[in-house]
Amino acid sequence: MNGAESLVRTLLACGVDTVFANPGTSEMHFVAALDRVPGMRVVLATFEGVVAGAADGYARMSGKPAATLLHCAPGLANGLANFHNARRGHVPIVSIVGDQATYHKPLDPLLAADTIGFASGVSAWVRTAHHPSQVGAYAAEAVQAATAPPGGVATLILPSDASWSEGGAVAGPLPSFPPAPVEESAIADAVTTLRSGEATVIILADAALRRPAIDNAARIAAATGAHLISETFNTRAAHGAGLPDIGRIPYPIDAALAVLAPYRHAILVGAHDPVAFFAYPGRPGRQLPADARVHVLARPEEDGVDALARLAAALSAPPAAMPARPRAVPVSGAVTPQAFAQTLAALLPDNAVVVDEALTFGFPLYAATAAAAPHDCLQLTGGAIGDGLPMSTGAALGAPGRRVIDVQADGSALYTVQALWTQAREKLDVTTVVLANRRYEILFGELAGVGAAAGPASRALFGLGRPDHDWVKLAAGFGVEGARAETMEQFADLFMTANRRSGPFLIELVIP
Amino acid sequence: MNGAESLVRTLLACGVDTVFANPGTSEMHFVAALDRVPGMRVVLATFEGVVAGAADGYARMSGKPAATLLHCAPGLANGLANFHNARRGHVPIVSIVGDQATYHKPLDPLLAADTIGFASGVSAWVRTAHHPSQVGAYAAEAVQAATAPPGGVATLILPSDASWSEGGAVAGPLPSFPPAPVEESAIADAVTTLRSGEATVIILADAALRRPAIDNAARIAAATGAHLISETFNTRAAHGAGLPDIGRIPYPIDAALAVLAPYRHAILVGAHDPVAFFAYPGRPGRQLPADARVHVLARPEEDGVDALARLAAALSAPPAAMPARPRAVPVSGAVTPQAFAQTLAALLPDNAVVVDEALTFGFPLYAATAAAAPHDCLQLTGGAIGDGLPMSTGAALGAPGRRVIDVQADGSALYTVQALWTQAREKLDVTTVVLANRRYEILFGELAGVGAAAGPASRALFGLGRPDHDWVKLAAGFGVEGARAETMEQFADLFMTANRRSGPFLIELVIP
Repeated sequence: MNGAESLVRTLLACGVDTVFANPGTSEMHFVAALDRVPGMRVVLATFEGVVAGAADGYARMSGKPAATLLHCAPGLANGLANFHNARRGHVPIVSIVGDQATYHKPLDPLLAADTIGFASGVSAWVRTAHHPSQVGAYAAEAVQAATAPPGGVATLILPSDASWSEGGAVAGPLPSFPPAPVEESAIADAVTTLRSGEATVIILADAALRRPAIDNAARIAAATGAHLISETFNTRAAHGAGLPDIGRIPYPIDAALAVLAPYRHAILVGAHDPVAFFAYPGRPGRQLPADARVHVLARPEEDGVDALARLAAALSAPPAAMPARPRAVPVSGAVTPQAFAQTLAALLPDNAVVVDEALTFGFPLYAATAAAAPHDCLQLTGGAIGDGLPMSTGAALGAPGRRVIDVQADGSALYTVQALWTQAREKLDVTTVVLANRRYEILFGELAGVGAAAGPASRALFGLGRPDHDWVKLAAGFGVEGARAETMEQFADLFMTANRRSGPFLIELVIP
Repeated sequence: MNGAESLVRTLLACGVDTVFANPGTSEMHFVAALDRVPGMRVVLATFEGVVAGAADGYARMSGKPAATLLHCAPGLANGLANFHNARRGHVPIVSIVGDQATYHKPLDPLLAADTIGFASGVSAWVRTAHHPSQVGAYAAEAVQAATAPPGGVATLILPSDASWSEGGAVAGPLPSFPPAPVEESAIADAVTTLRSGEATVIILADAALRRPAIDNAARIAAATGAHLISETFNTRAAHGAGLPDIGRIPYPIDAALAVLAPYRHAILVGAHDPVAFFAYPGRPGRQLPADARVHVLARPEEDGVDALARLAAALSAPPAAMPARPRAVPVSGAVTPQAFAQTLAALLPDNAVVVDEALTFGFPLYAATAAAAPHDCLQLTGGAIGDGLPMSTGAALGAPGRRVIDVQADGSALYTVQALWTQAREKLDVTTVVLANRRYEILFGELAGVGAAAGPASRALFGLGRPDHDWVKLAAGFGVEGARAETMEQFADLFMTANRRSGPFLIELVIP
């Protein structure tokens, strides 16, 4: 057995049965092994950023890692931005990167570049298999490393001779690491804080944003008066009617500071001490008040879900009554952020997966969809735009039977627009709503924030018009049906129709 | 004056007057400075790979570097593949990358990543300006570093506080380094070799592939019986009727070995000792015969143009008569590589710029266009596919008044398809010919080369059908007019029409 076949068989033995790929010549023997060994679902994307983002979405929804297969260094480079998002979201991915043969790389062929250097910035684990006998063992390590709490990208670099040479050996799965339980002292500290009577916010992240953790968090909040909030960008949050209403720290710096200003204490459950996305002159970098005390109930790699259960018990917190929230109703007329958010919330299908890369036009969206049918919401965890279309693609594969709704800023959509073709090829149940404001609106806001008026350069660089992108034609070019909406009524009709169909559909919502 | 303004003014003072950009929040003050300071042409691309590739094409044609402006680390990451191509082509680019404020980065905000690590793999020079007083001086250094022979990417990392803080100082241009003259001993060694009567090939690269160097190379060849050839992928070669006919080392490994097999000596003029693009089992890595002697007339950073002139003089080589080559004539009927190559050669407009990312379907193209109207040919110097559309975009801006013909494989075009929009916005005279074979044909060839038959995985991963991309609709979505050709006659008509217009046009050539 050659190294490539030992890799495929080891991945399958370790429960990795889906690979998103954009291979090249150096990955040829891996592909040939996929031809010979049954059992691996193989999904092509025509750009590596789609591969990485799709693997991210798949893992968020399926709860297990996919593999990715990318071409040597420049191919990997094209995937880095979405691997960055996965890294920040603690999402497990087993990234296989082909490379020049070990004996050929010293000749510095044209395509050779710094594969390890590129991978290191996004990976929790990087290793090169120099010999076929190592491939299986390292692949099992990669799966273990990707899934070790808090989860991350494990990169296995596979020189082509390690792939094609005989001497491969299949490895079985290594023990997985459960998240470590938090110390009793952390529970006790949280109890003391919550009983202090001082204003306290509990900041939740990762698994603490899903059931059963959110129910325990709601019990704790109801029993103590503490408030619940999540980070600005969350990996996967259970959200909607009948679920505890946990907001997000707003993206705009002044809004974030205002939301966190009342608190004397913050209890972190898998979350980070919140910091501004960027530095702004005259604003602090940390978003909590300087005199607020930060209490770590659970670090990201610890068992925050268990910690919340123990904390609720320690507080003898009774089950929390869910406030009855009126379900959202559609809004007609002009296309505004608020009208869109309410209408989307009103018409969201049951058990949907919402991928939120709406950015500026979506600022009211999360609050509005608290009144929508229950759903999971996936967000841009690393802030590297261009994640929505790929993430939706992978989420649909990781959550079959559920409709994926990608609420998608147009500027961001352009980075990885090739994902639409993979949606068409795989006939994925994705509704993409492109919010076509035809500008990098967030940058106009930032420009105003620094006190500058827009001039010729900023108008050229922040505007996406002259000419406008025609999203219906772009979708058709990639094999996805689409239509344009210019009013909320048109949007509502198209959105309902799209969500009832099988396969992908794109709605271009024209923002005046 | 803040750091950002000192940067803009320094770039202008150093002769850099064009910036390709896809900025974000951390680059806001640079954009605001561009608003205030006149004189910089600002070109937006909606994906960073387009920014990097366009700067590459611009520099190849204008002979001077453009600046690029990218967002902090994940934004830079999206540009790395095309920076890699520029690095391998020795193309000067001044890459400005915004970054988190120096005092904010230690808080590890979500978008922070390894900017220096990402940049290092593609850059000849990397430096971070930590204080506004450094920005101007470093920018002048960056221009000097980018243009120092052999040329490369100089990356200046600009934390946002170095950009927005007062204390910037404009720097004047630093002395530029001319290419070093080669030692007399290298000339003498080449004379001895060429007079030995043993079979000799002269391998040319970079500036040695343009006038006056190619005329001197032709004199040397005519006087000594040596053969001329160029590397497989060249930065910019003068090519066509009336010019010395200098072929390329073929891409397919066995063809390359066969072409170089006859030679006992190779004289390198800016070229590398040729190595295979990838390792193949049972094939050597170096492509010259093992017993051939390699003579370095000029290293890439040395003055190969001058060396060829001195060598021609030392050999008392008379001017070479250009062989009269019959001009190509169009071919009608079925779409084949040979018919396409001949037809394109026959109809190529005068003084065109040909960007060749044709890959498999273009294998006969270079030989055929030796009989075309004289033109410059730009190729995929680093082998990282996805360079053609961006390079054409930049080349059109760097060579105003010349028609750019992008001969473009479809799979490769998808990586950076967003470039079409920049072509539309800037009204660039680019004719894109998408060779729509709807597969990664090169990979099917490689698979056969390893003795494997295509199975379900390779068919899924190497085929681009199910559904086919509709390139005419994609072009329209980006604002570029297009049409489809299914015969050589249709292609010929569309190609002539396209080249007479102003602005971009895309032809989808359907390959049966």
